[in-house]
Amino acid sequence: MRVERYPHNPIITPADVTPHHADFEVIAAFNAGVAVLGDETILLLRVAERPHSPNPQFIYAPIFAAKDRQLQMKKFDLSDVTYDYRDPRVISLSGHKDTFEFLTSLSYFRVARSKDGYNFTVDTEPFMYPESEFESFGIEDARVTKIENTFYITYSMVSPMGIGVGLASTTDFRTVQRHGMVLAPENKDGVLFPETIDGKYYALHRPVPKSNGQPEVWIAESLDLIHWGQHQPLFGLRPNSWDSDRIGAGFSPIATPAGWLELYHGADKNSRYCMGAILLDKANPRKVLSRTKGPILEPTQSYEVNGFFGNVVFGCGAVVHGDGVQMYYGVADTSMACCTLSLSDIMAELHS
Amino acid sequence: MRVERYPHNPIITPADVTPHHADFEVIAAFNAGVAVLGDETILLLRVAERPHSPNPQFIYAPIFAAKDRQLQMKKFDLSDVTYDYRDPRVISLSGHKDTFEFLTSLSYFRVARSKDGYNFTVDTEPFMYPESEFESFGIEDARVTKIENTFYITYSMVSPMGIGVGLASTTDFRTVQRHGMVLAPENKDGVLFPETIDGKYYALHRPVPKSNGQPEVWIAESLDLIHWGQHQPLFGLRPNSWDSDRIGAGFSPIATPAGWLELYHGADKNSRYCMGAILLDKANPRKVLSRTKGPILEPTQSYEVNGFFGNVVFGCGAVVHGDGVQMYYGVADTSMACCTLSLSDIMAELHS
Repeated sequence: MRVERYPHNPIITPADVTPHHADFEVIAAFNAGVAVLGDETILLLRVAERPHSPNPQFIYAPIFAAKDRQLQMKKFDLSDVTYDYRDPRVISLSGHKDTFEFLTSLSYFRVARSKDGYNFTVDTEPFMYPESEFESFGIEDARVTKIENTFYITYSMVSPMGIGVGLASTTDFRTVQRHGMVLAPENKDGVLFPETIDGKYYALHRPVPKSNGQPEVWIAESLDLIHWGQHQPLFGLRPNSWDSDRIGAGFSPIATPAGWLELYHGADKNSRYCMGAILLDKANPRKVLSRTKGPILEPTQSYEVNGFFGNVVFGCGAVVHGDGVQMYYGVADTSMACCTLSLSDIMAELHS
Repeated sequence: MRVERYPHNPIITPADVTPHHADFEVIAAFNAGVAVLGDETILLLRVAERPHSPNPQFIYAPIFAAKDRQLQMKKFDLSDVTYDYRDPRVISLSGHKDTFEFLTSLSYFRVARSKDGYNFTVDTEPFMYPESEFESFGIEDARVTKIENTFYITYSMVSPMGIGVGLASTTDFRTVQRHGMVLAPENKDGVLFPETIDGKYYALHRPVPKSNGQPEVWIAESLDLIHWGQHQPLFGLRPNSWDSDRIGAGFSPIATPAGWLELYHGADKNSRYCMGAILLDKANPRKVLSRTKGPILEPTQSYEVNGFFGNVVFGCGAVVHGDGVQMYYGVADTSMACCTLSLSDIMAELHS
């Protein structure tokens, strides 16, 4: 399995992004959706900003207050045993490390543009920023799918009411239209198929049920991209494997002669995130044809292993040129990297 | 708040239902959806059946195997400490009492018919029975909404993959058509509004997110009842109240001059289930106008307090005659009861 990492990875780091908020620092610029518009490659970056804390004894959770359209800061004393601060991403109640109460940063989307696909300039203003009380903890992990001449953006809406999948659209990456929450909590990793199949739109999504069931990948269909039904589980966790703990669709499935190729992320019990591949029937995407046994990309480089939350490769988009899948992927919940995978190698893995 | 319970409650008990499965016992006939068809009142009963265990040391979890369309029994030794058997409804992993691995009974739907609304005869055959692998743990808690001349049935589809909301329809309560899973896990208590508002169908539903958020009531909209979007939280838990732990819509909202009247169930930390009321704006059902402070029905009678899972009143349907709301409700997860509530009394509670 050939993986050609771009030698100058990472291609975007937090240092490349000026903070949008006064007295905040950019801690991550990662998990970007990908689009090609004219002669530009566009990355729809998730930028995470954290308030500076003048005293290391305290941290602050930023919360977007929709009513007065401004950020509020909730202050936490690290010696307060009510909360557990060990996961740098979240603030949990002590004894409840699998759930969270607040996030330590606020995420929103910035556009980065490039002529060569490697050297990017980040827009100075946010492209999408929390707007409603359903986004008060931020918006995360955009995936972009071009359908006819419109780019559809699926993303996580995060709030105290849970995490749902939102839909927005743009034609120019300057203005954006929101279409509401398309999948109710808890759900993440919503990706759209790039064309209709038998007159229907399809999506992959990843519910996280509480009472029973696992964080696995489901499929749904729609007539208009805004309303979804016919939900069915599609593929699940594999015990004792690299994808044993949680999985989610990476980005819009790639049309190949053999079927729909979906690159997905999976994590094990140690939260080590890799990417794998699964092949779906072209005419009936509810049918799984094959799945790679091992990962096709693993965190091995220092920029993949070390960071805000290490040991993560998380692909949210790609550009396909012939046999090459130029995948853009978030690394260590910190930066963006790029690598080229070979379609034929992935197909060989799928049929081995 | 006047509540006139029918003096001969309960109106249907497990003894009124012959088991569908050989060597099973009916442990519950409860949480019935309600419809009026011609001169008949129809209850769409949830019937729960449990395998007889010849040896009290063992219990069996019934699982519908979709492939060969028959029940499989999974045997559990009560002395096996891998599992926790304290909740009579479920089998959980020890140390994980808030989640479950298996159910101790299989639920499906039977029709009960009555000319007077109180004396019911239960059909001898199931009306709906698990059909797919997404219903392998059973189907539960039907709600019936008449829209034009069709009765739409929303219900819980339960399987190892989680609990979702299914949709089916009938015009005669003899034959039924399924429309798939309309809301992905974890979700329950889906109810439809009885008419379109500004050309759109609306539903209430109750997601149960895992990472953050609570089991609260959401609203969604649809153009065809099968595909749903525009999800938004509608009303939530109230700390230190009778509805502090979980809530869910009861049944289809009742159109009143003051707005949409929704009777909902709520439970406290002791899993004591009561019914309350909330009023939604007629033209914009996303707007809550008022909510009763206390419950409008509480478990007080012996048949409500004692049973398979006691201290539960759980209304899934009603027939409105002038000021009277004749509500049918499950009691103690065992039987069906009936009471008449006064619309004007509920309205007075809502405005007090």
